[in-house]
Amino acid sequence: MESKGFRRGSFQSSTSDEDLVEVGGGTLDFSIADDVPPLDREMAEGFSSYNGGGMNGASKMMDFLEEPVPGVGTYEDFNTIDWVREKSRDRDRHREITSRSKESTWALIHSVSDAFSGWLLMLLIGLSAGALAGLIDISAHWMTDLKEGVCLNRFWYNHEHCCWNSTKVTFQNRDKCPEWRTWAQLLTGREEGGAVAYILNYFLYVLWALLFSLLAVLLVRGFAPYACGSGIPEIKTILSGFIIRGYLGKWTLVIKTVTLVLAVSSGLSLGKEGPLVHVACCCGNILCHLFTKYRKNEAKRREVLSAAAAAGVSVAFGAPIGGVLFSLEEVSYYFPLKTLWRSFFAALVAAFTLRSINPFGNSRLVLFYVEFHTPWHLLELLCDYSNDYNSTKGGSLPNRAAGSGVRTAMWKLALALLLKASITIFTFGMKVPSGLFIPSMAVGAIAGRLLGVGVEQLAYFHHDWGIFKGWCSPGADCITPGLYAMVGAAACLGGVTRMTVSLVVIMFELTGGLEYIVPLMAAAMTSKWVADAIGREGIYDAHIRLNGYPFLEAKEEFSHKTLAMDVMRPRRSDPPLTVLTQDSMAVEDAEALVAETTYSGYPVVVSRESQRLVGFVLRRDLIISIETARKKQDGIVSTSIIYFTDHSPPLPPSSPSSLKLRNILDLSPFTVTDQTPMEIVVDIFRKLGLRQVLVTHNGKLLGIITKKDVLKHIAQMANQDPDSILFN
Amino acid sequence: MESKGFRRGSFQSSTSDEDLVEVGGGTLDFSIADDVPPLDREMAEGFSSYNGGGMNGASKMMDFLEEPVPGVGTYEDFNTIDWVREKSRDRDRHREITSRSKESTWALIHSVSDAFSGWLLMLLIGLSAGALAGLIDISAHWMTDLKEGVCLNRFWYNHEHCCWNSTKVTFQNRDKCPEWRTWAQLLTGREEGGAVAYILNYFLYVLWALLFSLLAVLLVRGFAPYACGSGIPEIKTILSGFIIRGYLGKWTLVIKTVTLVLAVSSGLSLGKEGPLVHVACCCGNILCHLFTKYRKNEAKRREVLSAAAAAGVSVAFGAPIGGVLFSLEEVSYYFPLKTLWRSFFAALVAAFTLRSINPFGNSRLVLFYVEFHTPWHLLELLCDYSNDYNSTKGGSLPNRAAGSGVRTAMWKLALALLLKASITIFTFGMKVPSGLFIPSMAVGAIAGRLLGVGVEQLAYFHHDWGIFKGWCSPGADCITPGLYAMVGAAACLGGVTRMTVSLVVIMFELTGGLEYIVPLMAAAMTSKWVADAIGREGIYDAHIRLNGYPFLEAKEEFSHKTLAMDVMRPRRSDPPLTVLTQDSMAVEDAEALVAETTYSGYPVVVSRESQRLVGFVLRRDLIISIETARKKQDGIVSTSIIYFTDHSPPLPPSSPSSLKLRNILDLSPFTVTDQTPMEIVVDIFRKLGLRQVLVTHNGKLLGIITKKDVLKHIAQMANQDPDSILFN
Repeated sequence: MESKGFRRGSFQSSTSDEDLVEVGGGTLDFSIADDVPPLDREMAEGFSSYNGGGMNGASKMMDFLEEPVPGVGTYEDFNTIDWVREKSRDRDRHREITSRSKESTWALIHSVSDAFSGWLLMLLIGLSAGALAGLIDISAHWMTDLKEGVCLNRFWYNHEHCCWNSTKVTFQNRDKCPEWRTWAQLLTGREEGGAVAYILNYFLYVLWALLFSLLAVLLVRGFAPYACGSGIPEIKTILSGFIIRGYLGKWTLVIKTVTLVLAVSSGLSLGKEGPLVHVACCCGNILCHLFTKYRKNEAKRREVLSAAAAAGVSVAFGAPIGGVLFSLEEVSYYFPLKTLWRSFFAALVAAFTLRSINPFGNSRLVLFYVEFHTPWHLLELLCDYSNDYNSTKGGSLPNRAAGSGVRTAMWKLALALLLKASITIFTFGMKVPSGLFIPSMAVGAIAGRLLGVGVEQLAYFHHDWGIFKGWCSPGADCITPGLYAMVGAAACLGGVTRMTVSLVVIMFELTGGLEYIVPLMAAAMTSKWVADAIGREGIYDAHIRLNGYPFLEAKEEFSHKTLAMDVMRPRRSDPPLTVLTQDSMAVEDAEALVAETTYSGYPVVVSRESQRLVGFVLRRDLIISIETARKKQDGIVSTSIIYFTDHSPPLPPSSPSSLKLRNILDLSPFTVTDQTPMEIVVDIFRKLGLRQVLVTHNGKLLGIITKKDVLKHIAQMANQDPDSILFN
Repeated sequence: MESKGFRRGSFQSSTSDEDLVEVGGGTLDFSIADDVPPLDREMAEGFSSYNGGGMNGASKMMDFLEEPVPGVGTYEDFNTIDWVREKSRDRDRHREITSRSKESTWALIHSVSDAFSGWLLMLLIGLSAGALAGLIDISAHWMTDLKEGVCLNRFWYNHEHCCWNSTKVTFQNRDKCPEWRTWAQLLTGREEGGAVAYILNYFLYVLWALLFSLLAVLLVRGFAPYACGSGIPEIKTILSGFIIRGYLGKWTLVIKTVTLVLAVSSGLSLGKEGPLVHVACCCGNILCHLFTKYRKNEAKRREVLSAAAAAGVSVAFGAPIGGVLFSLEEVSYYFPLKTLWRSFFAALVAAFTLRSINPFGNSRLVLFYVEFHTPWHLLELLCDYSNDYNSTKGGSLPNRAAGSGVRTAMWKLALALLLKASITIFTFGMKVPSGLFIPSMAVGAIAGRLLGVGVEQLAYFHHDWGIFKGWCSPGADCITPGLYAMVGAAACLGGVTRMTVSLVVIMFELTGGLEYIVPLMAAAMTSKWVADAIGREGIYDAHIRLNGYPFLEAKEEFSHKTLAMDVMRPRRSDPPLTVLTQDSMAVEDAEALVAETTYSGYPVVVSRESQRLVGFVLRRDLIISIETARKKQDGIVSTSIIYFTDHSPPLPPSSPSSLKLRNILDLSPFTVTDQTPMEIVVDIFRKLGLRQVLVTHNGKLLGIITKKDVLKHIAQMANQDPDSILFN
């Protein structure tokens, strides 16, 4: 079991206890920088919306509204954010800036720049994603050629560029020039080599490939365990509100970029498209730090990441619209129209940047050739057929007169299909950056071509059959195996990822074949139906489930007839719900409560007898606030009364000064009745992005349902292990 | 003021009173068939989820669970649906069918057919939308030519087909053949006419155009007032949950189809694209009646309508993916991924059907020529330029050597721009089916071409300038005015409708110009920014506001710092909230309450003193249930006690039998606290599609906020007249 990875083993201990709301992960054996940024004024004001009068002298000295407490309003690692709170906070901040903008010119400029910062950020993300994609493409191209040989004098040129700049090259033999030396030529010093040179070249080729792969694996293990895989399942989880610190950090970006180049150029059966989405999201996350608005708000940052994912797909396939749709259909959780427009802009800038860099030396953004060529070399199988296939993609159809050798070719294709499919399956599990898009498209393309060649032969030999008679005139080409390959690629990718609309758009942005939209759409729909009939989960959802991430699937409807009272804690036999009272608990009582329980928040009620709900307080905020008050506020002792009301409760004159904590009280907690069907509760959690709801019966507080409770319940109803949900 | 139309005047009276929840419209002066379908077993069971024991003898005889009351669970016209209730009801129905499917083979078949009915419905919608679009295209083409003349012997042929079938036609003069006679030729009997024939033809042409327009106006006024305009604002409102009976009915469909053909062929400056969306939605709505699942559930029907809108755009522009995105970005309110896939399928089938019909006699789905040609004839201005423009669209660029006459041409273009823009503005207000897409694209195309020709001339005469040097070699064409026209068309349409992603996709599905995606995207974004800076509303949103529809805009964030307590009713000075108690009100008390108030629902509390909330009852359900019970249930008199609890309250032995109404009680009403910021309340209304939320303070019921209250509050905050919201 990988200790640095994201597998289940390392988190088991944190899920064994039957608590309501867990805090943090138990035995994280990899260290994560838990940097809690100091809150600034707007945020604290935003979080504590209402600051009525009635403070006593002590609290005036150190009121939380005056000097925000660092850490209040932030989240622990491996926890889920509260979307409502985050968005509310952003709106408070926005209001603050807007109202201040009338005061001075400087504030006005600040307000305008704040309004445009979103678009500026999109521009920067587009530029950086495009630039990084260009860099990766160029480096991967050069390193792929490095396995064969090197350019004399100009070692930084790849094979193609090397011979472009040569004067001794003929048009027919464009890739042969004296400047480009194979390793055998360099080592033996001879121009033309026989079998020895061929074997030497082959040996060195494999050696380089092994070296690259090994380096990639070591780099990922040593420096950034988060850099492995495609990253899309994790990004999907993060976008749904989960916090994985460092997953989109600068180290992950650097290591992922370097190892991606290594992995691609080593010739492994993997694509760079998925990891490019991760790279673009890293860019987006890092660039967020430039703007206060996005640095300090987890919800706003997720809007930016949605757009970054679109930019990533945009540069991966040269498909800006496909990128936006991919982000919408596949990865994003909260995707308002504003994000749609911004994603669109980021994707546009990214595609434009990549086109300006022009990594393949032609005006197209993506050259399939690079990815397709490599695995064939490795397999040492029908390189002729794959080239042939690639040229079909490009549009020029070679002559398809059926002749001898077709049977052999089909056998080879079938063998390639098997090998490619199995190698891809194993490669995807490796701890290197690896995408699934291109390999699964390749598998589908081979299968499609196989079918296409078969139908072509059938039509050639039996053109008098009814079905062929309509459109086949004898002798002429009426079947295009290349089209079958394209449709097959789309169908296979669709089956693996369950994309539909975004898949078709990506395919036709990729191939420019607007006329093939109907077969592509039909293939995408059919493959989704067939795949859904076998298993409801796409590969990304399956990975999310395997990793135990708290992801609330928006595609599946919850269809069981359970009620909120069946899911809420405490259960009937359990002790009653742990609550705080609004004006009768001492500091030591609260501290004891926090020490005894591990819940991440506590409801506040009028009194234990009435159980009438006032609000909700987060554990983290409560701990930080009490600690800070004990340190900095005069007169706060263990017997000080905590009050969440506007006015301090009437106390005997001898009692110590009381502690007002109304500012950390969420006065608008979400409630549902105990009779609410769980399908509605699940819907509320999904659509509003909640962390918990409180359950009432006839106006009295009865219990609590957290997101984890909901996920466990869903798993239980689907006959899965409810403890497979590992995080909060 | 149009009495049949949808303008403000006719509904003023219904909004003057200051009631919480209004019922129906006051003085609707057009009759609408208010057909209340009988509820079937599953729905009533779905609505009343919990049927505990404890019924007395009388209620057992006539329990609502046994025999559902017709009308319970339906909506009045011009009211808003409750999405949560509808979706919950559908899930109950689904569960019922699934659980029954194990009982018998027949039930299993029913279950499978129910699961596939959605896809079957999509297929039917696609087929009918495609067929109707083909019919409209062919008819409009024929009637447009009818203004000029008629085909001898085969009067049902249009000009083009007439001459195709002629043997006496030369390739150079394809549109001149003896079979096609102009009206002057027919009336005067002479082959070649001079000035007299020309004037006669022109006169008859105008006469036909006037006749068509008049007929269209009369048909709309007389038979289906809902058939006017593009229908997109109303469809948007309906999709958000509003009920306008008959708006998507069969009469509207028939009249809209006929008058659309008339209006288009009369040569008015209008497009058939917007109305085609309405036509497709009518098809969708009518076809819903074939399936119980969709006929009886307003929420499910709206999912179908979203897909139908996508099919409409798909056939209007031959852009299936653009259609899906248009539905998503512009018209739909609730668009889950399932609807995305189904829309995609419906759009695909529709496009495929239209392509099979092949209305323009070529393989392309849309021929711009038809729409563009007509207005130019009417204007009698530079037909040469518009043709020229159209050919550019088609791909073949005419020679652009700058010569004399360019200045004149530019003046003519500018004049055409002015005329076209002003005529379009007036035409859109007419009471005929009229779309905005093509006219606004035409305006933009003229402006774009004007700019293009200008830049071309500049580049021609000043090709040594810095900016032109990079890509212009002297003498060669370096500016393509046709591209400017295309980008201009996209920009103008984007400014009018504020579409972005869907616009670009439609444009490139329309033109096939994948290489122009970057200028198109840039144009769409820029025009949205500029237009948003002038006014935040697109044309459809402006129409919704003008008509006073209760549409909760999802694009704009509510940014004011008000609380739920500021919006809820009753206000501080008002009498307390009207409530029902759970087990202490007599039938006559409830009837008095219903008679005194006009609210569309009442909260049920434990007792007036405690104000602890139990549930919510809809006025309509309450009235129908009491009426039915009085008629059919023995022993129910005015003094009978109504109880909403599981068990009947302890009553003295002499009292009449009590009436159990738990089945109409919504046990999971949504509640928020009085301190909840309105931004969160607005968000809840939007995302969950609610009709009302109840407001509590410390566990006690305090007030209610309806969707109309929210809309009025938003209008008030935006300094608009809060009474502009006319409907519930």
